[in-house]
Amino acid sequence: MGQPKYLTGDSAAINAFIDQFDVFLLDCDGVLWSGDHLFEGIVETLEFLRSKGKRVVFVTNNSTKSRPDYQKKLTALGIPSNVEEIFASAYSAAVYISRIMKLPAPKNKVFVIGESGIETELRAEGVPFVGGTDPALRRDITPEDFTGLADGSLLDPDVGVVLAGLDFHINYLKLSMGYQYLQRGAKFLATNLDSTLPTNHTFFPGAGSISIPLINMTGQNPTALGKPSQAMMDAIEGKFQLDRARTCMVGDRLDTDIQFGIQGKLGGTLAVLTGVSKKEQWEAEGANIVPSFYVDRLSDLRAAAS
Amino acid sequence: MGQPKYLTGDSAAINAFIDQFDVFLLDCDGVLWSGDHLFEGIVETLEFLRSKGKRVVFVTNNSTKSRPDYQKKLTALGIPSNVEEIFASAYSAAVYISRIMKLPAPKNKVFVIGESGIETELRAEGVPFVGGTDPALRRDITPEDFTGLADGSLLDPDVGVVLAGLDFHINYLKLSMGYQYLQRGAKFLATNLDSTLPTNHTFFPGAGSISIPLINMTGQNPTALGKPSQAMMDAIEGKFQLDRARTCMVGDRLDTDIQFGIQGKLGGTLAVLTGVSKKEQWEAEGANIVPSFYVDRLSDLRAAAS
Repeated sequence: MGQPKYLTGDSAAINAFIDQFDVFLLDCDGVLWSGDHLFEGIVETLEFLRSKGKRVVFVTNNSTKSRPDYQKKLTALGIPSNVEEIFASAYSAAVYISRIMKLPAPKNKVFVIGESGIETELRAEGVPFVGGTDPALRRDITPEDFTGLADGSLLDPDVGVVLAGLDFHINYLKLSMGYQYLQRGAKFLATNLDSTLPTNHTFFPGAGSISIPLINMTGQNPTALGKPSQAMMDAIEGKFQLDRARTCMVGDRLDTDIQFGIQGKLGGTLAVLTGVSKKEQWEAEGANIVPSFYVDRLSDLRAAAS
Repeated sequence: MGQPKYLTGDSAAINAFIDQFDVFLLDCDGVLWSGDHLFEGIVETLEFLRSKGKRVVFVTNNSTKSRPDYQKKLTALGIPSNVEEIFASAYSAAVYISRIMKLPAPKNKVFVIGESGIETELRAEGVPFVGGTDPALRRDITPEDFTGLADGSLLDPDVGVVLAGLDFHINYLKLSMGYQYLQRGAKFLATNLDSTLPTNHTFFPGAGSISIPLINMTGQNPTALGKPSQAMMDAIEGKFQLDRARTCMVGDRLDTDIQFGIQGKLGGTLAVLTGVSKKEQWEAEGANIVPSFYVDRLSDLRAAAS
């Protein structure tokens, strides 16, 4: 496979790159910021792209935040944005359930393993749910739970979907409930399958490490609604009516962001070196995920402005 | 592959079967009992085998109980036994750490994800540990935990092993700690890798569904000390000085019990139909785990006594 074009410091190449695209799908963590630290020059770079008539869409696998939550984070970091420019995996999952699955009542409730961002998005789409942040499930499993889950008396008969995202309050009880719903025929969805959550310059368990016990127990793989799942790309395309050939995916992770753009047959993919993946990964022999362009940092694109 | 010999109701075949072996390794749940329900005729069947000079060893992947805990369970169900006849995965793991790994101090502490059975066995072998049932870890993760785990200040520098078993109190904090220890070079062990725990006529998450988030995050596979791992067979052979050719593994699960006996090149394997696996599984075309004998229930062996 060919190697990506390196744009940093090459104004002519950057101008040609920008001219190729109308839409930039931007991963956030590792591209715009790390944790709560905004990278230098990001606000100016986004302004520069917008000033050239480009549309930017913030695309994130973070499932703990709703779009309004996410906009608050962007605002707090000084990044101007609109809720409609934000596409997060919790929103992607809620839209998939309400507009694509369209489960008939009464068997249309969602058992949520995850945080409030998922609940907010489900509520906005009018999807009924149980679980999630319910304090009644944030406790140890009891002998009564074992019998009540086995005979089904503790289960909601209207649950037709198990949706698993990142849950900082994961426990044995929730995993047991999720398993019982799946065994009774509920559809299995995941906001995203990232194995890790990069934060504080290290890694913590990601959404994919919350759902994997259920995969292990049932032998079923969930339909994932985050990058690199093309269910998310289809939803983005449907919403923004974008021309894939003139759209570029920008990200720091080869296995989620860059793969997402390649599988989605976008016009291009741009890797940045401010996050997880290193250039040694695509330079390695037999590398199977190679971006079309790369820069050291996103703000290197501003060089074309001067 | 040939099909197993069906022994139920065939006294001559049962006599010939029993004569072939000196030692019977008995899985417990699904063979002797289900949950707290002892199967009919089990006590008499064990007495019958012992009366014929056979040695019985109770071999279980249950990692939540120490051998003394397990003996209490046997006694409560009316099964006479000796602690020395019991071989459980928590014991197997403790013996492996103390007698085979022999980590030099000070980097010889074990971070335990699991219940008190593991702690009892580690203590009996003189292995220092942290985690486990420590109430300080039975709580939600806090922002201070994220920073303290990232900078290492909340980690014990002497931890050299992460040992994961069945933990009814699994949470995000323990998974995060386990991951940080593994990233810092700790060896990765698991008491066993059963994906499910059969109980109350259904399934709950097993030890293998507790450790799998760490496998998913690190890409490392743990050394497993329960069936079908041959590390457990080697330990049993070492302890009981048994002749593998005259030893039979008895169990209800093809992928753990029967596989354990086949890989261990025992003289025979006996499947019972009172637990998880069904005869359709080994009768299916392309079945790759086939026992050498099977009975409907263990007590069918008593037919030879009459």
